Amino acid sequence: MKVLIVNGPNLNLLGTREPEIYGTTSMEDYLENLESEFPSHQIQYYQSNIEGEIINRLQHDDFDALVINPGAFTHYSYAIADCLKNIQKPKVEVHISNIYKREEFRQKSVTAANTDAVLSGFGMDGYRLAILSFK
Amino acid sequence: MKVLIVNGPNLNLLGTREPEIYGTTSMEDYLENLESEFPSHQIQYYQSNIEGEIINRLQHDDFDALVINPGAFTHYSYAIADCLKNIQKPKVEVHISNIYKREEFRQKSVTAANTDAVLSGFGMDGYRLAILSFK
Amino acid sequence: MKVLIVNGPNLNLLGTREPEIYGTTSMEDYLENLESEFPSHQIQYYQSNIEGEIINRLQHDDFDALVINPGAFTHYSYAIADCLKNIQKPKVEVHISNIYKREEFRQKSVTAANTDAVLSGFGMDGYRLAILSFK
Amino acid sequence: MKVLIVNGPNLNLLGTREPEIYGTTSMEDYLENLESEFPSHQIQYYQSNIEGEIINRLQHDDFDALVINPGAFTHYSYAIADCLKNIQKPKVEVHISNIYKREEFRQKSVTAANTDAVLSGFGMDGYRLAILSFK
Amino acid sequence: MKVLIVNGPNLNLLGTREPEIYGTTSMEDYLENLESEFPSHQIQYYQSNIEGEIINRLQHDDFDALVINPGAFTHYSYAIADCLKNIQKPKVEVHISNIYKREEFRQKSVTAANTDAVLSGFGMDGYRLAILSFK
Amino acid sequence: MKVLIVNGPNLNLLGTREPEIYGTTSMEDYLENLESEFPSHQIQYYQSNIEGEIINRLQHDDFDALVINPGAFTHYSYAIADCLKNIQKPKVEVHISNIYKREEFRQKSVTAANTDAVLSGFGMDGYRLAILSFK
Amino acid sequence: MKVLIVNGPNLNLLGTREPEIYGTTSMEDYLENLESEFPSHQIQYYQSNIEGEIINRLQHDDFDALVINPGAFTHYSYAIADCLKNIQKPKVEVHISNIYKREEFRQKSVTAANTDAVLSGFGMDGYRLAILSFK
Amino acid sequence: MKVLIVNGPNLNLLGTREPEIYGTTSMEDYLENLESEFPSHQIQYYQSNIEGEIINRLQHDDFDALVINPGAFTHYSYAIADCLKNIQKPKVEVHISNIYKREEFRQKSVTAANTDAVLSGFGMDGYRLAILSFK
Amino acid sequence: MKVLIVNGPNLNLLGTREPEIYGTTSMEDYLENLESEFPSHQIQYYQSNIEGEIINRLQHDDFDALVINPGAFTHYSYAIADCLKNIQKPKVEVHISNIYKREEFRQKSVTAANTDAVLSGFGMDGYRLAILSFK
Amino acid sequence: MKVLIVNGPNLNLLGTREPEIYGTTSMEDYLENLESEFPSHQIQYYQSNIEGEIINRLQHDDFDALVINPGAFTHYSYAIADCLKNIQKPKVEVHISNIYKREEFRQKSVTAANTDAVLSGFGMDGYRLAILSFK
Amino acid sequence: MKVLIVNGPNLNLLGTREPEIYGTTSMEDYLENLESEFPSHQIQYYQSNIEGEIINRLQHDDFDALVINPGAFTHYSYAIADCLKNIQKPKVEVHISNIYKREEFRQKSVTAANTDAVLSGFGMDGYRLAILSFK
Amino acid sequence: MKVLIVNGPNLNLLGTREPEIYGTTSMEDYLENLESEFPSHQIQYYQSNIEGEIINRLQHDDFDALVINPGAFTHYSYAIADCLKNIQKPKVEVHISNIYKREEFRQKSVTAANTDAVLSGFGMDGYRLAILSFK
Repeated sequence: MKVLIVNGPNLNLLGTREPEIYGTTSMEDYLENLESEFPSHQIQYYQSNIEGEIINRLQHDDFDALVINPGAFTHYSYAIADCLKNIQKPKVEVHISNIYKREEFRQKSVTAANTDAVLSGFGMDGYRLAILSFK
Repeated sequence: MKVLIVNGPNLNLLGTREPEIYGTTSMEDYLENLESEFPSHQIQYYQSNIEGEIINRLQHDDFDALVINPGAFTHYSYAIADCLKNIQKPKVEVHISNIYKREEFRQKSVTAANTDAVLSGFGMDGYRLAILSFK
Repeated sequence: MKVLIVNGPNLNLLGTREPEIYGTTSMEDYLENLESEFPSHQIQYYQSNIEGEIINRLQHDDFDALVINPGAFTHYSYAIADCLKNIQKPKVEVHISNIYKREEFRQKSVTAANTDAVLSGFGMDGYRLAILSFK
Repeated sequence: MKVLIVNGPNLNLLGTREPEIYGTTSMEDYLENLESEFPSHQIQYYQSNIEGEIINRLQHDDFDALVINPGAFTHYSYAIADCLKNIQKPKVEVHISNIYKREEFRQKSVTAANTDAVLSGFGMDGYRLAILSFK
Repeated sequence: MKVLIVNGPNLNLLGTREPEIYGTTSMEDYLENLESEFPSHQIQYYQSNIEGEIINRLQHDDFDALVINPGAFTHYSYAIADCLKNIQKPKVEVHISNIYKREEFRQKSVTAANTDAVLSGFGMDGYRLAILSFK
Repeated sequence: MKVLIVNGPNLNLLGTREPEIYGTTSMEDYLENLESEFPSHQIQYYQSNIEGEIINRLQHDDFDALVINPGAFTHYSYAIADCLKNIQKPKVEVHISNIYKREEFRQKSVTAANTDAVLSGFGMDGYRLAILSFK
Repeated sequence: MKVLIVNGPNLNLLGTREPEIYGTTSMEDYLENLESEFPSHQIQYYQSNIEGEIINRLQHDDFDALVINPGAFTHYSYAIADCLKNIQKPKVEVHISNIYKREEFRQKSVTAANTDAVLSGFGMDGYRLAILSFK
Repeated sequence: MKVLIVNGPNLNLLGTREPEIYGTTSMEDYLENLESEFPSHQIQYYQSNIEGEIINRLQHDDFDALVINPGAFTHYSYAIADCLKNIQKPKVEVHISNIYKREEFRQKSVTAANTDAVLSGFGMDGYRLAILSFK
Repeated sequence: MKVLIVNGPNLNLLGTREPEIYGTTSMEDYLENLESEFPSHQIQYYQSNIEGEIINRLQHDDFDALVINPGAFTHYSYAIADCLKNIQKPKVEVHISNIYKREEFRQKSVTAANTDAVLSGFGMDGYRLAILSFK
Repeated sequence: MKVLIVNGPNLNLLGTREPEIYGTTSMEDYLENLESEFPSHQIQYYQSNIEGEIINRLQHDDFDALVINPGAFTHYSYAIADCLKNIQKPKVEVHISNIYKREEFRQKSVTAANTDAVLSGFGMDGYRLAILSFK
Repeated sequence: MKVLIVNGPNLNLLGTREPEIYGTTSMEDYLENLESEFPSHQIQYYQSNIEGEIINRLQHDDFDALVINPGAFTHYSYAIADCLKNIQKPKVEVHISNIYKREEFRQKSVTAANTDAVLSGFGMDGYRLAILSFK
Repeated sequence: MKVLIVNGPNLNLLGTREPEIYGTTSMEDYLENLESEFPSHQIQYYQSNIEGEIINRLQHDDFDALVINPGAFTHYSYAIADCLKNIQKPKVEVHISNIYKREEFRQKSVTAANTDAVLSGFGMDGYRLAILSFK
């Protein structure tokens, strides 16, 4: 199974950005762990701070399942939401922190209704759980 | 590890209630599967349609981790929310359906901020994923 | 036809509670009248101040038609609303007073959309009219 | 007893308009049934698409009880609401469909507080039930 | 000076409608008084319960100043508001009762911004004061 | 093709009413142009300031396509909206000015969802474009 | 009759402040005119920019009727509103400009419900009309 | 005087629950102090996590004055509010913490309007002050 | 202990102002009673209708505990709220009437979060209870 | 005349994306048709999923008239709105579907007020109609 | 150049009030620094806790430029806002703290639209920057 | 000191875009002036219409202080807001126009809370003042 993991803006700084919220593990290190945990999966990773580039990536029909953490785009990018709606593959939205414990604006997701399921608050372990949901 | 699973109102009807949303597996059958998947865990199950009985159950300090699906109480039971806040154990909120695809009122959770993490839309598989998050 | 009448909180005080709004007839006396008016119907009556007990009662599949006055639960019990949604029988919501003449919060019903029809403001006569609607 | 039935805009099309919501019986046929069911009542019927003509009709003091289905005027005609307030006769508001199952705007009635009681969702049978409430 | 007085819906019942709010003087009697108080003015009076007929009347360019009490139309008739905007004559909106002491909905006027001035709460004397403001 | 054009309140004053917004062409002159531009179409025109008369006209089933500019009724006439919903013909809503540049209340259309398409801001040319969309 | 006229903040600048809205007549000049127009009345005038001083003045029980233009205090001074409520004399609120043509915040009056009547948009002539309403 | 003290959900944990907000005294210890401070009063205590059981208790007419801390039910239990409305005895609502310093939802009380008075922020001393208000 | 009691606008009229709400006891008489009840306390009293004078008084650091009834300022004076925040002494907000039974605007307190505790609805006895809370 | 057509995010998928809403014609095929229909116009086409690239394109002053379908950016891109405001050419906003029939968020356009006119619901024919409006 | 600096309520306590927000420098000390930094300017300083006194001061036409920190009045004093609107001199609003980091109510300024520019979050240095903007 | 100045969308057109709001000076000319005014500072300038490119630039840790005018992104880019939160350097948000005098949507800044201070309405001089605040 080809799994595409997409991370939105500022998530390239995982490990150094607000570590009290997002932890101290970098995404690169975490991906290595994921790969050894899921040896039979092919895991691709894409990150961009540019909304439209994320859409461009998502439109490539080269994956079997999607894990997406849209970061701040979660709360206003109807463009990514429209793009997700068009994807006919298993797709899970992941948030590292528990968005219900944070600012009001983070509790509205314009993208979640266009994915199959949502995970929030498991730290980086959320990506692993998302992949575990694909069968 | 002793895991307590708590289900709120109408979830005793799983398997027959609105199967197009909640599926056709009964909770009893599902629990058997869970137990075989997690042989080293001790899984307790509690369901009630009565808000205060759920609080009574939660106040018993006899578990190591909590998986709770408050059902409709998710959206207005500040009493259960207060009770959850007082629990100092790993605790995960689970929703079988993706609440973001449903009615407006289901998109507000008064309890989620008092748990560690939230899972929504994985069907009954959500309970398994929640347990997998406990380490 | 087996008709189940369910009354919510504080409606056990009918006849003495705020008589300028709810009248001076007790439910017991009223039920006697109903039974003589509908000799061919079997009328069961259930009242509880406990939300979850009402759900427990409703889940018993032993009636042909339902008349429910959820009392104050009308305005916030999504749990009863979910329960009603699952009932595949004729079901009518009754309010003794005209809720449109009262406080703002009484004008929102979270349960009505899950019943077939709603009656409001006919005094206790509303129960009779509801039964008359069953054919 | 002289009963006046007043129907608001587009209700002259009953039987052909959105039959999945309003049924296939025309008001004319239904009125014949009503008249045979209530032989001792004198039933008058008035329909208009023009808000002010409904007010003109209501101001004629030639009935003992009123059944009114203001149609779409229910949701914004404060002029009809003011007119109803001035009527000192038994008066019931009827809606054919269950307004709680429909669009948000249909759930606000500006007229209901100025009638004695409201019926919603009984189909055309609502007119009969309204008359049954007059004693 | 030709003064046109226009009254909206239900104001044909002045003197009998809710006399505790609107007083016991009929408009006809009141107009006689006005005419003797303003012998040099030519006072025309128009009342209709039909919104569009009021617009038809207002579009006749046969007056020098306008006194309008739109009644309940005050609160929602953008059609009358548009019509008033097009009138290039002195124009005053009158309300018999003090709308600030009444229901919330009566405190919004969609027409007032398209008149020159507004009078509210002077009882029927408001019409006289409005005419006194024309010079 | 028989095209019915319906104009709402105050649109009988086109050419003289607020010419900086609505232009200086009268509807009569404009209709002559339309007729010469669409010689194979039969163009009927109806205007009324009375909401219910517009409904009466629309209920006549004597046209193949509808162009409607409900004027101020756009913003509150659920009665016209209900009537439009019942019409199974091509139907286009036209606004002369760009409603997005005007008052807040003009940006809500209660009728547009019951037409096929909406045109706004093309001046009187909007009627021509609407007809061009019928094939 | 002793008439007290009270003006709120910035109204000491009448005649020079925003003359396109408030005109070019000073209050002092205007008062002279009023006095000659009402020779049998005793007109007292009080102005303050300090909310509490206006309350102090109003608490003096030395007038038969009150004309008050609370200026900007109209929109938030619940303290003046409470004070007005306690006055058992004829009392009229005056606004020089038509508040319905101005900013949103000027369309809310917290004081008007505690006066008998309100005048808005008559320019300084509003004070004269207010006095004319006292009989 | 028989004083009934009623505590709502999670208040059975006083002394251990969030001690930085609710303090470290248990209700049992506190009640002993109260009893010695008010030797002439008969103090009954009732606590439940179940909304309807609180209503059941309140409906027993065996007390002269009521002190109630509805806990989280304060914010949504219209059922308890209705029950309180029916009690014709001195009745005081108590909150241990100052609800104005806490979450937004805690600042709305649906029950307070149906009691005589409200105390908030005095810690457990609030119960004593409430009893001191009964004379 | 030096206790400062501060009363806001219109509370100098206690005993005569709206006696059905505020009672018939004057503050002066009430203070005499307080002084005899608390002989060991030194009770100072300050009242002003002027918001800023209340702030001036509060800034004098000559008391050990504060009882404040901000009157109407409760609902909008962020200036008094800021001042209260700066006071590091026991401080209680008192309202004579139960604000939850009154107008909507009286149910918002901008000052209460900056005091320790709030009392509402005990009549003038509220001042006594506030002092009893100081130990 | 040089006409620039700009399409926003996900509109590169026209013909395959949600065909029940957007139809089955690709933009490329449609453009060919447009070019043969308007042989005297020079039609340029630009599409991007990246908001800022659309702004970059719009800032090139190389067209005589603009047709823009901002896609999802319609609902939140104040950046594109600011850019459009600066363009002094005929400019029309086009939506393929009737936005009034769709989700609430699609009914707010932040860009429309900065174009001359808006077309919605004509399917892909909207582009043709827009060009027909340029003269 | 004569520069008037006006400070609103509680700003006389600068240096001691909430030093973690407002710092430990008193206004008096700060003014000395300002005077030495701007030797060619004549700097006047005025502070009051009384809203109307600030208006009185502002109405004196004896300065060339204004720096105003309205303190808490920023958020509700339409009276000061009206006064500022009337001043035809360079005028800058200053806030010591970054109001965007603080309570919701502090993020609304009713006065800022009537000044030329606003500075927020520079600590006491904001006054210096404001003066530097005058040329 | 290395100062980075970042400008958001459409600010590359300064000098030609809406000159009545933004003035006629181009950013390039203005930067030359800045450089001569601050000879000891190293001023870098970056502008982009692409949100994510601004984030990319900000993530480069090569400056000592930041001046950012996010343009329209101010009002919705939570992505830039998150990025700013992560920057541990002096940082000031600048707006050329006084946003309080403009459209409602421009008065909400989602980024300002993540900067130290905000300047609005000083024209292009705001950049200079921002740099003057760095010490």
